[in-house]
Amino acid sequence: MNTHKQARPVLAIHGGAGTLLRSKSSPQQEAAYLGALQRILGDGQARLAAGATAMDVVVEAVRQLEECELFNAGKGAVYTAAGSHELDASVMDGATLRAGAVAGVTRTRNPVLAARAVMLHSEHLMFIGAAADAFAARHGLEQVAPDWFGTPLRLEQLQRAKQAEAGVLLDHDGQALAFKQAASEPISGPLDEQSKFGTVGAVALDAQGHLAAATSTGGMTNKQVGRVGDSPVIGAGCYANDATVAISCTGTGEAFMRSCAAHDVSALMEYLGLSVQEASRRVVMEKLPAIAGRGGLIAVAANGEVALPFNTEGMYRGYARVGEAPVAAIYAG
Amino acid sequence: MNTHKQARPVLAIHGGAGTLLRSKSSPQQEAAYLGALQRILGDGQARLAAGATAMDVVVEAVRQLEECELFNAGKGAVYTAAGSHELDASVMDGATLRAGAVAGVTRTRNPVLAARAVMLHSEHLMFIGAAADAFAARHGLEQVAPDWFGTPLRLEQLQRAKQAEAGVLLDHDGQALAFKQAASEPISGPLDEQSKFGTVGAVALDAQGHLAAATSTGGMTNKQVGRVGDSPVIGAGCYANDATVAISCTGTGEAFMRSCAAHDVSALMEYLGLSVQEASRRVVMEKLPAIAGRGGLIAVAANGEVALPFNTEGMYRGYARVGEAPVAAIYAG
Repeated sequence: MNTHKQARPVLAIHGGAGTLLRSKSSPQQEAAYLGALQRILGDGQARLAAGATAMDVVVEAVRQLEECELFNAGKGAVYTAAGSHELDASVMDGATLRAGAVAGVTRTRNPVLAARAVMLHSEHLMFIGAAADAFAARHGLEQVAPDWFGTPLRLEQLQRAKQAEAGVLLDHDGQALAFKQAASEPISGPLDEQSKFGTVGAVALDAQGHLAAATSTGGMTNKQVGRVGDSPVIGAGCYANDATVAISCTGTGEAFMRSCAAHDVSALMEYLGLSVQEASRRVVMEKLPAIAGRGGLIAVAANGEVALPFNTEGMYRGYARVGEAPVAAIYAG
Repeated sequence: MNTHKQARPVLAIHGGAGTLLRSKSSPQQEAAYLGALQRILGDGQARLAAGATAMDVVVEAVRQLEECELFNAGKGAVYTAAGSHELDASVMDGATLRAGAVAGVTRTRNPVLAARAVMLHSEHLMFIGAAADAFAARHGLEQVAPDWFGTPLRLEQLQRAKQAEAGVLLDHDGQALAFKQAASEPISGPLDEQSKFGTVGAVALDAQGHLAAATSTGGMTNKQVGRVGDSPVIGAGCYANDATVAISCTGTGEAFMRSCAAHDVSALMEYLGLSVQEASRRVVMEKLPAIAGRGGLIAVAANGEVALPFNTEGMYRGYARVGEAPVAAIYAG
């Protein structure tokens, strides 16, 4: 844990976890996702090599993930049940334990930049709704029309979800997932967008030994308006502490909130002395499944070790250590 | 930790922490606060003795605190900088780890009931803004006009705060508290309302050995519209887990969010085997002050032990164990 001064800088990113398509995805689809992950990893790796801070690198990586229509955050965000978009994001700086978050953003092009602006320019940590957009606008962040985030593909997914009454993750006893898949073939990506937990995130260790984490999401297709998941909640979907680890989560947000999943990984490392691999394994493979929590997380420890566990069939993910080739993957194993 | 089957049921409540008035408060003022705390403790104690669940008891105690104009939650909530009210609340059930939360409520008379409704009737955990009120209304909870929550006293406090530019808790480096007191004498209660961290909360252990926690707040006087603090954030201002402890916090919300304060107490107990007294002392007296966090928390452990630590001059607080006289207090010592 105290060897992080020697550890090489490293970035890890994710683009959501979920079940595989019933139909085998095409090599072209896989290549598109892996290519996007590789490109963003390569860019972040270069920034880290040039001495960028972990915070700058995770924010820029998430901004690029938000700009990429393949992923459910920023442009390409899923639709709510009302046909709108509501975006959430958060950032945390492991060196200072400072953090910023926004929830229910509808006009700020890059929610992760709004979260960072809250961290940097407000005595508060979290803003919601129109006030979050107004704060971002006051700090010079680009505002877009509320329908800017949508794409024809996401709209078709909403229509399919409504047909299938998808968007219900937990039953009223909180016991079971109810994925009701549309009858017709899914229509995009190696992971089934109708059941995928769409979130993006990044964690990094920089040359100064500092950690940072960032998470951003469009939520879940067909979600009720006003629902907030784990992505903007510090300790649930995002956490960073130079003493332990930086974490970004993706999955059934409610279970991650009930588990305080991101903080729990840190606590297991700090109090039990577990490695990042063992701490994150316990949370993702034992604690979350015990409350029907599905998904995964990315973690970079203060000593530079990386863990990318998930309990679904796949997670868009990758990491890039300075001086090594970036690694990107979708499926398990 | 495994002796909770034998522990007698117990309820603890708080009504906010803060600095003392510069002018010595009158015996009448103190009596009003202590009387309200005693009355609510006595009511909850009777419910616990009659076999009520911890969840029912904490929700009812917080509902009564919301109804009491002395405390900054529900009726008597403070004003935002815009002269409005925005209320946040959360509940968590230690037996199931289920939870519910609302933020930015403006029309639901009892936000804690809205938080419970979300827990009971939604697959989601948190709703914000108008959607949270709409959810509460759909589930039969009383709606009031947005100005119903105000009182002449709270309006005067807003005016004083604006004059004094109070409402700023942390400077831009997150290092220092900046309490700018109004020049004139404060106007209510033993704790200075201009610098008090107004939140209410309750935690309980019931006869079945189950724990529950509830937290509710009007936020801080003169807060920016859309700001959300720790009160509705599971793991920050509210947490319950039958394996460890039930917690409700009050204080500089941003520091409690950055610390994941409520979950951290639980983690210290679960992973280091600390007592509830030692775990909550570390969080309130060491970890929070390290990031300029001021306030306190109430905790009831699975073994029935109670801790009510705070790092301010006072905290409205009390506890009532079945079969013993309720204890209420304001100042330290």
